[in-house]
Amino acid sequence: MTKTNPTASLLIIGNEVLSGRTRDANLQFLATRLGEIGIPLREVRVIPDVPEEIIAAVNHCRAKYDHVFTTGGIGPTHDDITSECVARAFGVAWEVHEETRAIMAADYARRSPPVELNAARLRMATLPKGAVPIRSTATTAPGFSMENEHVMAGVPRIMQAMFEALAPTLEGGIPVTSRSVHAHRVFEGQIAEGLTAIQDRYPALDLGSYPYYWQDSGGVALVAKGTDAAMVEAAAQEMFDLLARFGTAQRGEPQV
Amino acid sequence: MTKTNPTASLLIIGNEVLSGRTRDANLQFLATRLGEIGIPLREVRVIPDVPEEIIAAVNHCRAKYDHVFTTGGIGPTHDDITSECVARAFGVAWEVHEETRAIMAADYARRSPPVELNAARLRMATLPKGAVPIRSTATTAPGFSMENEHVMAGVPRIMQAMFEALAPTLEGGIPVTSRSVHAHRVFEGQIAEGLTAIQDRYPALDLGSYPYYWQDSGGVALVAKGTDAAMVEAAAQEMFDLLARFGTAQRGEPQV
Repeated sequence: MTKTNPTASLLIIGNEVLSGRTRDANLQFLATRLGEIGIPLREVRVIPDVPEEIIAAVNHCRAKYDHVFTTGGIGPTHDDITSECVARAFGVAWEVHEETRAIMAADYARRSPPVELNAARLRMATLPKGAVPIRSTATTAPGFSMENEHVMAGVPRIMQAMFEALAPTLEGGIPVTSRSVHAHRVFEGQIAEGLTAIQDRYPALDLGSYPYYWQDSGGVALVAKGTDAAMVEAAAQEMFDLLARFGTAQRGEPQV
Repeated sequence: MTKTNPTASLLIIGNEVLSGRTRDANLQFLATRLGEIGIPLREVRVIPDVPEEIIAAVNHCRAKYDHVFTTGGIGPTHDDITSECVARAFGVAWEVHEETRAIMAADYARRSPPVELNAARLRMATLPKGAVPIRSTATTAPGFSMENEHVMAGVPRIMQAMFEALAPTLEGGIPVTSRSVHAHRVFEGQIAEGLTAIQDRYPALDLGSYPYYWQDSGGVALVAKGTDAAMVEAAAQEMFDLLARFGTAQRGEPQV
């Protein structure tokens, strides 16, 4: 049997996603990268800039999953409350992190014209007591890890830099492998029974069925995922054979 | 004082979003449309195709919010378990809905060549006892409402048709109005203090600050939202004046 992989959850913090103003761009990136390093994403929540909601979600997820990632709410404005809420969730002080203050002050002093490290910007150097900063090339205002809780920026470019700085420090699991097959003009209702039988033969894998639309018609894509690459290949072959009974099966995702 | 609007939550059900295979396209549509009809979205969860997770999330959200919307998991394959899980969450039987079976059977019989209403497809006519089907022009396999829980397809085109069929039956609230202003080369750290003061003068509004990147530099967009349109306009004017102290303020969202 394969060792069970560690698990991850993601909290997307921000009213702008809930209002539809902003289309989240972080979920898919993190889902993909976490799968690659064997820490699959098991749950995502999008929550508003409300302290009680953030604190409750952080405490729920850090108890239930091996890792919690958050995006958003670590800038200098009044609606950036993630860092303070994480301190409250862990029951620790929220205080200026001196090393970070010094790094940011030096960065701001070097700029032309120099930037003032005012009270608002100093919030970005204020961390839960005991937090470990996540430093990246994108900005001197850091993310941070507090035990299994990893706090990152909401801006995708900065979030990605922070994640890539953090990733080598995480103990990963076995990468999740996936294989897909598809067939145009074959439909889920035709192959559902056969697919159930394959799933029953490979209970350790996650088999998915996804209809798609193409040239006024459509088809179905079937995907096998799991940490045992040989088993994934075997199941994908069986799915290919199943589709071939009803149409022209092809390997890979449909290009539609 | 304005009457409080009803609230909504969204459950996105599907391993394919959590694995990164599929980028969700339903959140932003529903967030926008629900804001327009005055039922703002307060929380979103993306959860896997695991019965216990679905049942727990449905029961949590239907108790906490006025409406719960779910997308995904109502097709004919083994991983389509939303409908059955909603029945279990409500403690009712999951049984063939005769009117829906008849509608689907007639539709399938009319096709050329005719489509068999086999066991897999019959799952799509099987609903929690007491559910009200959501019929749309997109497909004869329906979504359904079970009290305040509204179950829709995951395919965006079908989901949108189901939502538009459902929306006129929902008692909406006061539409959420928003106004935005922005300025290139003005940064959050400069305006944070002034923005906090505006937020303090308009506690009924939701003011947001969003940095953006543009031509190797960037700027900040400020957004005011609320159900009192006159108050939103007044706050937007104050935000415009705040930005104008530091740069060239403009109304509307930046085109970047």
